[in-house]
Amino acid sequence: MTTPDTQREVRRRMSPEQRRDQVVAAAAELFDSAGYTGVTMGDIAQQVGVAKPTLYHYFDSKDDILLAIHEEFIDLLIGRHDERRLGGLPPEKLLQEAMGDILELMETHRGHVRVFFEHHRELPAEARVAIRTKRDHYERTIQALFEEAADSGAFVAQDSRLSALAMFGMCNWAYQWYRPGGTLTPRQVARRFWRLLICGVGSPALVESLTPVR
Amino acid sequence: MTTPDTQREVRRRMSPEQRRDQVVAAAAELFDSAGYTGVTMGDIAQQVGVAKPTLYHYFDSKDDILLAIHEEFIDLLIGRHDERRLGGLPPEKLLQEAMGDILELMETHRGHVRVFFEHHRELPAEARVAIRTKRDHYERTIQALFEEAADSGAFVAQDSRLSALAMFGMCNWAYQWYRPGGTLTPRQVARRFWRLLICGVGSPALVESLTPVR
Repeated sequence: MTTPDTQREVRRRMSPEQRRDQVVAAAAELFDSAGYTGVTMGDIAQQVGVAKPTLYHYFDSKDDILLAIHEEFIDLLIGRHDERRLGGLPPEKLLQEAMGDILELMETHRGHVRVFFEHHRELPAEARVAIRTKRDHYERTIQALFEEAADSGAFVAQDSRLSALAMFGMCNWAYQWYRPGGTLTPRQVARRFWRLLICGVGSPALVESLTPVR
Repeated sequence: MTTPDTQREVRRRMSPEQRRDQVVAAAAELFDSAGYTGVTMGDIAQQVGVAKPTLYHYFDSKDDILLAIHEEFIDLLIGRHDERRLGGLPPEKLLQEAMGDILELMETHRGHVRVFFEHHRELPAEARVAIRTKRDHYERTIQALFEEAADSGAFVAQDSRLSALAMFGMCNWAYQWYRPGGTLTPRQVARRFWRLLICGVGSPALVESLTPVR
């Protein structure tokens, strides 16, 4: 797969779906490195190695590609969680795995991640609503895990919205600092963050000394 | 201060420093709402209510304003922490207040925050290095609080870098969801996040059941 000829040959054998995915991945990388505004359909075509009319065969506009990136990102997270949910894991374990899913995307979908977090506002209004609906659905699903874990006695009952926002912050923020190839894999980082979230950093004496908030 | 005439009168009485700050604040708001790339020096002049040549009296270019926004943001955080440090508070309290500083900026400096997090790469190379140096300094200072708190027995000793990254994630990520005027003030959110970080969400039984990571 190293020469342009081989690349063309490989592309020829791809299904339409695979070719579409290839465009989305290439565009995500470009938007990540050069910013959404500055990238043209021509740039994307060049990056994929196809003619511009071929690109328009898959997507009507740059906005459409932006939407596809958003959809792929959030569908991945929802899909992995939904599938895992069928396995009957307890909520605290489902949470640990969901944190792993997010961290893992920092390695496998770097371009998607930045685009999802920073170029939400560039989506056309209708698409923005559709994506926000999916994102809210995912966030509520994960937030519900905190409640289920409190019900089962694994977690201490507390404001599940704030706990979920804290967890999403810990994991999502990694797009700003995580670099592939470091000493810890994404799932290892996720596991440590999960433990931090479960156990806290306070010594028993400090924890004991704190009066309840409410 | 409601009519253009009064605004002009107020501006006339401002010190050069205050006028410069006004430009920075207006530009941060514009970059936040319209994106850095799309905003021109003309737009900024119009937003401040001055002629374009007047704007160039304070800043040579849009890049210079971008740098000023970054500097103001990080200098604020460093300044508040350094000043507080003189008061002799224990490290865990200094951490709580630093978390409050970050959350508070989501209310008082919304434009600055997004620009700082999302438009770092648009800075000219030299400025980018200078800002990164300051940011790293601040992050290391806050990370050291985890080590000091572990030394004093307030925190359990663990990877201070990951703990600091988790804390920054919880707080910084609020720029994506925090809306002024909600039920909790920024400092109240910070205080709850701090407790979460200290105490964790796990029940004693779950915490007890976990084996050490290393």
